[in-house]
Amino acid sequence: MTIHNSSRVQANCTHSTPALSVNEAYNVSSYTFDTLSLQHGGQFGPVTLGYETWGTLNAAGDNAILITHALTGSAHAHDVEQPDDPKAAWWNPLIGPGRPFDTLRYFVICSNILGSCYGSTGPSSLDPRTGQPYGMRFPIITIRDMVNAQHHLLQRLGVHQLAMVAGGSIGGQQALEWAVTYPELVRNVAVVAATPALTAQAIAFNEVERQAIMADPLWQGGDYTPGQGPTTGLAIARMLAMITYQSEEAMELRFARQPARRLGVPSPSNITDIGGRFDVESYLYYQGASLARRFDANSYLYLSRAMDLFDISEDYPSLEAALSRIQGKALFVGIRSDFLFPAAQVRWLAEKLKVAGGDATYVELDSPHGHDAFLKEWGQMAEALSRIF
Amino acid sequence: MTIHNSSRVQANCTHSTPALSVNEAYNVSSYTFDTLSLQHGGQFGPVTLGYETWGTLNAAGDNAILITHALTGSAHAHDVEQPDDPKAAWWNPLIGPGRPFDTLRYFVICSNILGSCYGSTGPSSLDPRTGQPYGMRFPIITIRDMVNAQHHLLQRLGVHQLAMVAGGSIGGQQALEWAVTYPELVRNVAVVAATPALTAQAIAFNEVERQAIMADPLWQGGDYTPGQGPTTGLAIARMLAMITYQSEEAMELRFARQPARRLGVPSPSNITDIGGRFDVESYLYYQGASLARRFDANSYLYLSRAMDLFDISEDYPSLEAALSRIQGKALFVGIRSDFLFPAAQVRWLAEKLKVAGGDATYVELDSPHGHDAFLKEWGQMAEALSRIF
Repeated sequence: MTIHNSSRVQANCTHSTPALSVNEAYNVSSYTFDTLSLQHGGQFGPVTLGYETWGTLNAAGDNAILITHALTGSAHAHDVEQPDDPKAAWWNPLIGPGRPFDTLRYFVICSNILGSCYGSTGPSSLDPRTGQPYGMRFPIITIRDMVNAQHHLLQRLGVHQLAMVAGGSIGGQQALEWAVTYPELVRNVAVVAATPALTAQAIAFNEVERQAIMADPLWQGGDYTPGQGPTTGLAIARMLAMITYQSEEAMELRFARQPARRLGVPSPSNITDIGGRFDVESYLYYQGASLARRFDANSYLYLSRAMDLFDISEDYPSLEAALSRIQGKALFVGIRSDFLFPAAQVRWLAEKLKVAGGDATYVELDSPHGHDAFLKEWGQMAEALSRIF
Repeated sequence: MTIHNSSRVQANCTHSTPALSVNEAYNVSSYTFDTLSLQHGGQFGPVTLGYETWGTLNAAGDNAILITHALTGSAHAHDVEQPDDPKAAWWNPLIGPGRPFDTLRYFVICSNILGSCYGSTGPSSLDPRTGQPYGMRFPIITIRDMVNAQHHLLQRLGVHQLAMVAGGSIGGQQALEWAVTYPELVRNVAVVAATPALTAQAIAFNEVERQAIMADPLWQGGDYTPGQGPTTGLAIARMLAMITYQSEEAMELRFARQPARRLGVPSPSNITDIGGRFDVESYLYYQGASLARRFDANSYLYLSRAMDLFDISEDYPSLEAALSRIQGKALFVGIRSDFLFPAAQVRWLAEKLKVAGGDATYVELDSPHGHDAFLKEWGQMAEALSRIF
């Protein structure tokens, strides 16, 4: 087992971009361990996790906060060089001295999740047995596998208890899994915009996205040539995902029926517009192209599937039985306009935990921004966290 | 100008299926006229419309009902041989003797829309100048163009006034356009699950669908070889569309997180499942494959774009000015769980018409079935129509 500190990891984990600008790279540490027991059976390894930390672990090893990132996110939750720029790191305004995740008091950790491509082992990693990328030979992974891998890392870092685990979306699934799987280690948990299990509709959206990727001839069954991946399919997948991360209300406020203000970004299919271009289309082309440049298509398949497969009651007699394991204080944050993880279901989860005897608090963000509100509504997020932490 | 009666038209208008079963074909008449003035300028022709009629036109020519179909629909709104089978024709239970659209009293007409592929001129039709299919050389068409083409047909049939125009979705857009463009001809109009203009979100979904089609290498810029069209892309587009036609609630009731009950239909990309298959995925594969067999991909592009471009206030000083033209009674039907055409916007449209001095009635279907409820909630639909008709 080895820890490599401060290796320079590219923020872009695909092989499809010739170069990265300096500000797209950041310092990340990594930890490699030999083997991980997978939820669906078998051992997998070696496993490397890329991670970043801020603040200092105390002698008792119990002032740690684990931040869990979303689907295409990375360990770069906070940027010490640009701490006031929300675009510099994905939860930047919530982390730092005097902020909700106070780096003067806490040792804040964010690790790139298993299966991703920002410094952790995923489908784009080389299989040591073959010297080739795993591709679709990567094992099926689950949220529990991600959490167990993080547990390995925390043990290595000397963390004995977590003052808080917090994350949104697939990060919220991880936070919930942490509280259920390692109840004695979690004093507080913030499950943001996540539910006990995905709806059929959310699974359906994810599957359309995966089909768009796998239908791209450049996907090549997952064995795409570095630099020649399925960027068209991945861009289409991202276009759809971006719709589901927002809301009808947010898109109406921002785009309505305005014609495109910029025409510079071609559509994924690179076809001329049919009867003009709406601004919302131009925006989605940009978002699609942006993700296709920075993310690995196979990672997208595996991670979105892990979201689908997540069911916190799995392997327990009931949902109540799973939730009754939680020992710490739990905050559940729903978003009024979220249709991927409906607020009503987040609230229902909080109520279930109360019925199961847990200490549950529910807060709803009053935001038009849909699922993505947990990456935008800084004031409301800070206020919500202050309810328990 | 010619009318061909009862030519046998294939219900499948793509070139991609080797054969059709007999019950997928039906009798349709067709009418061809020389030229149509297009909303975006220019003349286009010749134009053929496939259509079906039920009942008899009276001597005054004023007992006609025009039924306008949805995106991938056809003129086959009613089936006289199987009048009690909702699957035999898309509005079957609403049409016939003693039904809301009473064929004993009314002359009911449904024409396949301009740009479609069930007997009307569309991108898959041969351009007489070249002898080749129009493909993407087909002109941009609008809802108004569709309505103007229908107007040509009605004139030829001797219809002097419409007792009713009724349709849902893009059919609802046509119904609204009819009432505004030809107010003196429309005594009653039923605008079902349609709004004055699409939301940014709805445009965005449509554009993802179009990108999936155009990214399919077999699309070939629209010049696909007969029998070798972009069925993968079209199937993915349909998967997404089917999600938007339903609702989170409906999919949860029907599928929830059940594993697939049938595995016979491959996914559009024909790739092995990643970690099993959910029932909702199996259902979407089936729906995708089904549409890809029966519909023309280029028609899908043009018709969905016409939906995007529709804005009933276009060419008028304001929405109110457009609506104030309506002379007949207007019924607006929203669907509680519709997120493609939100009920609140349908209601708002009805209120706008009232403010503009019109005779407007709003009815909301209390259904979990989302946008598609107008093709499922027969009792509520009949009750809604009875409010004005």
